[in-house]
Amino acid sequence: MALNRAACIGGGVIGAGWIARLLLAGVDVDVFDPAPDAQRIVAEVLANAQRAAGKLLDAPLPAPGQLRFADTLEQAVAGAELIQESVPERLDLKRAVLQAIDAHAAPDAIIGSSTSGLLPSDLQQGMRHPERLVVAHPYNPVYLLPLVEIVGGHQTSTQTIRRASSLYTALGMKPVTINREIEAFVGDRLLEALWREALWLVKDDIASVTEIDDVIRYSFGLRWAQMGLFQTYRIAGGEAGMRHFLGQFGPALKWPWTKLMDVPEMDEALIDKIAAQSDEQAGGRSIRDLERIRDDNLVAIIRALAQQQGGAGWGAGAALRDQEQMLRDAAADATAAPLQLTSGSVPAEWIDYNGHMTEHRYLQVFGETSDALLTHLGLDADYFASGRSFYTVETHIMHLGEAHEGDGYETRTRILSADDKRLHVFHQISNPATGSVLASAEQMLLHVDTTAQKATPVDADLGNRIAALAREHAVLPGAAAVGRYVGQRP
Amino acid sequence: MALNRAACIGGGVIGAGWIARLLLAGVDVDVFDPAPDAQRIVAEVLANAQRAAGKLLDAPLPAPGQLRFADTLEQAVAGAELIQESVPERLDLKRAVLQAIDAHAAPDAIIGSSTSGLLPSDLQQGMRHPERLVVAHPYNPVYLLPLVEIVGGHQTSTQTIRRASSLYTALGMKPVTINREIEAFVGDRLLEALWREALWLVKDDIASVTEIDDVIRYSFGLRWAQMGLFQTYRIAGGEAGMRHFLGQFGPALKWPWTKLMDVPEMDEALIDKIAAQSDEQAGGRSIRDLERIRDDNLVAIIRALAQQQGGAGWGAGAALRDQEQMLRDAAADATAAPLQLTSGSVPAEWIDYNGHMTEHRYLQVFGETSDALLTHLGLDADYFASGRSFYTVETHIMHLGEAHEGDGYETRTRILSADDKRLHVFHQISNPATGSVLASAEQMLLHVDTTAQKATPVDADLGNRIAALAREHAVLPGAAAVGRYVGQRP
Repeated sequence: MALNRAACIGGGVIGAGWIARLLLAGVDVDVFDPAPDAQRIVAEVLANAQRAAGKLLDAPLPAPGQLRFADTLEQAVAGAELIQESVPERLDLKRAVLQAIDAHAAPDAIIGSSTSGLLPSDLQQGMRHPERLVVAHPYNPVYLLPLVEIVGGHQTSTQTIRRASSLYTALGMKPVTINREIEAFVGDRLLEALWREALWLVKDDIASVTEIDDVIRYSFGLRWAQMGLFQTYRIAGGEAGMRHFLGQFGPALKWPWTKLMDVPEMDEALIDKIAAQSDEQAGGRSIRDLERIRDDNLVAIIRALAQQQGGAGWGAGAALRDQEQMLRDAAADATAAPLQLTSGSVPAEWIDYNGHMTEHRYLQVFGETSDALLTHLGLDADYFASGRSFYTVETHIMHLGEAHEGDGYETRTRILSADDKRLHVFHQISNPATGSVLASAEQMLLHVDTTAQKATPVDADLGNRIAALAREHAVLPGAAAVGRYVGQRP
Repeated sequence: MALNRAACIGGGVIGAGWIARLLLAGVDVDVFDPAPDAQRIVAEVLANAQRAAGKLLDAPLPAPGQLRFADTLEQAVAGAELIQESVPERLDLKRAVLQAIDAHAAPDAIIGSSTSGLLPSDLQQGMRHPERLVVAHPYNPVYLLPLVEIVGGHQTSTQTIRRASSLYTALGMKPVTINREIEAFVGDRLLEALWREALWLVKDDIASVTEIDDVIRYSFGLRWAQMGLFQTYRIAGGEAGMRHFLGQFGPALKWPWTKLMDVPEMDEALIDKIAAQSDEQAGGRSIRDLERIRDDNLVAIIRALAQQQGGAGWGAGAALRDQEQMLRDAAADATAAPLQLTSGSVPAEWIDYNGHMTEHRYLQVFGETSDALLTHLGLDADYFASGRSFYTVETHIMHLGEAHEGDGYETRTRILSADDKRLHVFHQISNPATGSVLASAEQMLLHVDTTAQKATPVDADLGNRIAALAREHAVLPGAAAVGRYVGQRP
């Protein structure tokens, strides 16, 4: 489902996360938020999101959507196919905003509310087209975490639920549709139960904020990044199975363990205590620092999960693979093909004591192919004489077959990515008679000032030629050898 | 703190996890468990743990400890420095077992109870030396998750808490000492609060087991693998800080959201429902399959976290780095050094149009160095003539400096790891005049039957020589280039 234009009403942390996710998916976004610092918050979250997306995704990103700040809500929602409401969590305010959206939006636009707890049936009261309102509750950071809880109210149509799920999936998210509306839905119910208990533990001096966080992130937090509560317990039950596990656990539910029967008073003393312990835990790191650490960690975890199951991915890693495939499909161009730059046949002096082409001759062919790519990009003797060149800084070679004396060979080359100084390429050597790939090389080339002996940006013309070729190659299918480290299990 | 001998009383899933963690840390373990299937369970968990440790750790593992099954509890605990009790969660049973341990253990042995909820003050009643009893509550899988909650009772000495923390740290764990004993301590209190709520959600048909698990693992589960509840909320509060966040959240605690005031009846109907939904979620995968998937995911997540913070690691990844450093220190051998196998000077024909040694000549030197390593290991012309050889299947090269015509070069080589078919090596080329490293190569060599053209195991003699050299090299410090993929951010 191709989404071209969306509106975001509310540009706080959650609203800005939506804006970033939409823009990076190529969707134009009109924003309405009367708060004076909305533009600054959106710019900051967008910078974080761009940084994270570049590290997360191995697929061609579409040209980012256009961001426009509207002067009025009416102006923002006109023409939008999806309107995401992320204003503060007060029923009266949300109702007023949703009614205004309802009055000005196209009749077939989907309206998604980011509420983390209010009932959609309450939110849709007073709307002319209540059937197109759905709760679409995301998790911070919205541009990285895949989950969106989809909850319909009494008046929400099943078509809206279906269309909304499809729209959010196209944004790389994992929609989970909740059967029946309840306050706080599923995720925040679970979080609130745990949060109350954590507050008691701090209040009663059982453990500090840091100790509680460590208990979580060194144990069940690691488990829950990949399997949830029930599947984890299924495994813990062992061969006897889930029924046995439940039988064991059952009686424990009666134990007076938790403080759940009561709610801690969030008074000044408790607020002071938590705030002070949290300051100590942060150890002087700013929120911006912590955000970057969090995002880098999340990117690394999701990418690690994407490597599982033979590269098909698991959990959030499987969602990432789906997103990459969607991006590739969206960019698909049947005419795109790797470059065929060099070919030849294997001379006698390339053969080693094992009777086949020796390893460094493969790199010789790959190196000549990189040179041919530079020539293809317009780098000539004059260019090198001007004191600039590309140096290879890193190479990963896979040997997949053998070549013998007299065998023909030919190469295929594609650009994986490029920036103003780096050129990331992938070559394959194959046997033209059999079509089989004999070896591949992934290489990073760095543009250097050969006099100063340091990296230097390419000039704009060359940069444009490289970028054009990179865009052309971005739609080519991925290769298992790319991004691999030596000895990595498949 | 060097631990040589431990006893484990109880060999169920948790006990077997402790046994595996201890054995892999080089500790001899005496086990007592009268259950007929204890030996089988221990063997299965140990196999999983060995598989996971091999993938997790980039450091020399010590020779595994000896595993012995004792006929009596007395026999098992005699001479043990640490005794870990992991029998079923019943106060009367645990007390009886702890009193028996107390009667036969050395007076200065530490006794750790794996209880997930009973109070240490209750457990230590009737012991002659109650001061050395401490709760040391781990999380499943014990051989992978770092957390151990340390909880003392009224009679536990502070020295015991200190010594226990130090012993568990030496096993690669993250001890978190809980200030004051309460039933279920910290982790299981949090888990129980969330678990009760999840049971209501299933019972009331708000969401299925699969949907709840997906809500967790696509959202806050990912967050909690790296930062806990409080630090995550600190960031969510944005620049306004924790105090602002708490101010917002505070009133919500009064909302009648959760079912916390009541406990669901774990009746047959609810057990049936959960068991059936769990079967559906498993999709036919056995518990063994799920265990392996879980372990591979956890290894990948912890390794991904170890790459953060410039390679120093974050959270569980930092704990892994600490463990690796301990293993390296423990194995430290001042005389260990890489092999110096080849050297020479750069001839004119190795220079390219950039005026420096061209890339494939580096691989030529690395290839010759691999050949020299094979010679060093005793592979000669007769060996190759017998139809066996090592083929390079994968190479990763980093270029760190330049060589010019006439420059000297020399190489350093170490074995990173080896099994019966694979030889994983790391070479460096340096300039002997300046000592600076010019390039490195990480390579995987495969032992092949050159007639059948397929991998084949090395014979026992050669295998022993390779293993001896690998052990010698295992204590050498790590290198940033090892395990790197092309373009990886530092």
